[in-house]
Amino acid sequence: VSAVRAPEPGAPVRIGLLGCGTVGQAVVRTLIDGARTIERASGHRLEVGPVLVRDAARERPGIDPALLTTDPARVLDDPAVAIVVEVMGGVEPTLGYLRRALARGASVVTANKQLLSRHGPELLRAAEEAGAELRFEASACAAIPVIKVLRESLLAAEIRALIGIVNGTTNYILTEMAREGTSYAEALARAQELGYAEADPTEDVGGADAAAKMAILASIAFHSRVLIDDVPYEGIDHLQAEDLAHAEALGFVVKLVGVARLLNGSVSVRVYPALVPRGHRLAAIGGPDNAVLLESRATRQIMLVGPGAGGDETASAVLADILSVLGTHQGSFLHNALADAGRPIAPPGSVPSAFYLRTSVADRPGVLARVAQIFADEGLSILSVVQSGYGDEASLVLILHEGIEDSMQRAVARIRALDDVRDDPVMLRVLGSGEGGE
Amino acid sequence: VSAVRAPEPGAPVRIGLLGCGTVGQAVVRTLIDGARTIERASGHRLEVGPVLVRDAARERPGIDPALLTTDPARVLDDPAVAIVVEVMGGVEPTLGYLRRALARGASVVTANKQLLSRHGPELLRAAEEAGAELRFEASACAAIPVIKVLRESLLAAEIRALIGIVNGTTNYILTEMAREGTSYAEALARAQELGYAEADPTEDVGGADAAAKMAILASIAFHSRVLIDDVPYEGIDHLQAEDLAHAEALGFVVKLVGVARLLNGSVSVRVYPALVPRGHRLAAIGGPDNAVLLESRATRQIMLVGPGAGGDETASAVLADILSVLGTHQGSFLHNALADAGRPIAPPGSVPSAFYLRTSVADRPGVLARVAQIFADEGLSILSVVQSGYGDEASLVLILHEGIEDSMQRAVARIRALDDVRDDPVMLRVLGSGEGGE
Repeated sequence: VSAVRAPEPGAPVRIGLLGCGTVGQAVVRTLIDGARTIERASGHRLEVGPVLVRDAARERPGIDPALLTTDPARVLDDPAVAIVVEVMGGVEPTLGYLRRALARGASVVTANKQLLSRHGPELLRAAEEAGAELRFEASACAAIPVIKVLRESLLAAEIRALIGIVNGTTNYILTEMAREGTSYAEALARAQELGYAEADPTEDVGGADAAAKMAILASIAFHSRVLIDDVPYEGIDHLQAEDLAHAEALGFVVKLVGVARLLNGSVSVRVYPALVPRGHRLAAIGGPDNAVLLESRATRQIMLVGPGAGGDETASAVLADILSVLGTHQGSFLHNALADAGRPIAPPGSVPSAFYLRTSVADRPGVLARVAQIFADEGLSILSVVQSGYGDEASLVLILHEGIEDSMQRAVARIRALDDVRDDPVMLRVLGSGEGGE
Repeated sequence: VSAVRAPEPGAPVRIGLLGCGTVGQAVVRTLIDGARTIERASGHRLEVGPVLVRDAARERPGIDPALLTTDPARVLDDPAVAIVVEVMGGVEPTLGYLRRALARGASVVTANKQLLSRHGPELLRAAEEAGAELRFEASACAAIPVIKVLRESLLAAEIRALIGIVNGTTNYILTEMAREGTSYAEALARAQELGYAEADPTEDVGGADAAAKMAILASIAFHSRVLIDDVPYEGIDHLQAEDLAHAEALGFVVKLVGVARLLNGSVSVRVYPALVPRGHRLAAIGGPDNAVLLESRATRQIMLVGPGAGGDETASAVLADILSVLGTHQGSFLHNALADAGRPIAPPGSVPSAFYLRTSVADRPGVLARVAQIFADEGLSILSVVQSGYGDEASLVLILHEGIEDSMQRAVARIRALDDVRDDPVMLRVLGSGEGGE
């Protein structure tokens, strides 16, 4: 059962936090915002705090100062704290803290890739011995639930390869270098301006961040111990614009990739800037996005794509881990949600979208004016018109801005009834670039 | 806790099957192949059978004929059968069968989208009342664990939109039509030849299959009751090559999309062929692939991509559902896997990849011959060479076929030592199009 030492059904659960920086504050906010859903799904009310900070006097927006403490014992040793969320980072004293919490049976949720890629097996053993859980979805590609997918959905799938773009900073820099032909230094400066790169970008651009994440992902994918020292890595800081240009001329894009593979029963995990063929799935992953490709016989290639880590993404992963530790009454939750029907169904005629319309018209003066008038009457606005052909073969293709389904249906019926219209008009909807677009 | 009525730790678990067609046989094979991993992860040995078939005399490769039965009671009513896997399809008599199994407390794993999109809420209630589990990862985009991600990882994420290419047959047909400029009829015939479309393709090309999947996914994403009757759908069977050509000229590709959104607190779910802007993430999803885009505030846009359903993909999803029902000792499993180190780490020098090399050379006779000889000595084979510039500014760019890291490192060291070589050579690795490529 997933919840090793789940609290009594219905009991409130106290969450202690280690660290309250950008990520910690996002976690606290997310726990508060998501509390009702968590309670419905898990049966447990969450109580947030204490929160270990360096300076308890400094204000954190939306967080009760009484929750803040500078004494680690209040989070680590209090039996009332059932789950310890670690977002302070670093290897020491963090390792000692987590050992201490696990030893008394508290479950731990951590976002700390450096710690896990060095001491993951030891922390798992500590959790196992204490009958506690150790969860770490946020430690690699936080916005993408790849660890859950590997640990659960694909546990028996025999993964053969895991290839990833797991560092958003370097992917942003490489995308900019390729798009603008700028130098590495310029692209890095721009990434720093936009907050995609830190003031000291060494961890990211040197490849260590990606190596830590790949060590964690490869451990889970291959059920094998892979530590960061097992992962040779190179960064992008020595890449020259010239090589990106050559790569492009040869049909490649350059990406910092993590490549984990089974090779004759051994595990190989490496991180390096690679030439990726333009038709490859990973070639299209641009900007600060992350992507992980998973190969197994049964599922062939699955790819998970999402934004690189930020506070909200990390908080979302931490929340999912907390739910995993608590366990969810999945059936009851869904049953209850679906029993009371939840939200109503929107009347199909009221749904907005953009439209495409093609119709054959007689090439006579005034046809376009009549069509345009119908759209104007129905409150629909034309984005573009292409007229082609002559005489009775003339074809009119229009793209319309977003409008309401019913209005478009009425407009199509009126256009169909025009004398100048030869065939049944073809109407298709247009997906907005904002609807899942970039 | 996820396992509502988990069998006693260590007890064997009997799995009964309803149906033994292509998918059913893949499930049986997968259960047998994955048995050891399942036992390590869940603590339960799986026992497979009985299997309900129409004709028990017909042979199924690799399946003991003694497991086959034509009597539904042997699967549905035997208390020894803890989990019923339904891969027979159809609404009747399947609905009655599943009600009967759930009523006695057996958990049910089903791949049946038509049934779930009509009777999902009722089956969830039956499971809830009996303290059993109902799992259905295989019912929508089987190869992609999107239902688990929605039910667990993103349960509290407040999904705003779910946009999907959820039917591989139509995506294959549309990709072919756009690529080859072929008619719908030709592309359909080709899809049928390749096994991507059934002899009677109505469900797929008419949009009903996608509508059923979208109803299921939207229910889980929005925690709201969405049945197939709530999903207006259109197919691709009336699409004309002309419209695809116009769409392309205007910067779009045409895809059959499912669009589920929250609109002022209501749920809107529709399926239609849409013009998708070329820069949109879904525009790049080609061939028989499926993809689902999930939008929420916390995770922004996540996209999951994978092959459309086949026997192995469905079996993999069924296996994951069985593991969810059994519950896994996640911590113990990982701890044990990592404690005995699992597979060894491959020596980095032994890892194969293809290579890129750029070096500045003096433009003198024989330079390329000397470089080529070094690669030949090291057993590395040249795929392409580009020489550009003149005199001491000449630059040599080579792509090498896959070779061993150590050989390449030796070759680079020898090239660096050549008199004709001006700068330090730049060596990058090249990702094979087979490594996660299409």
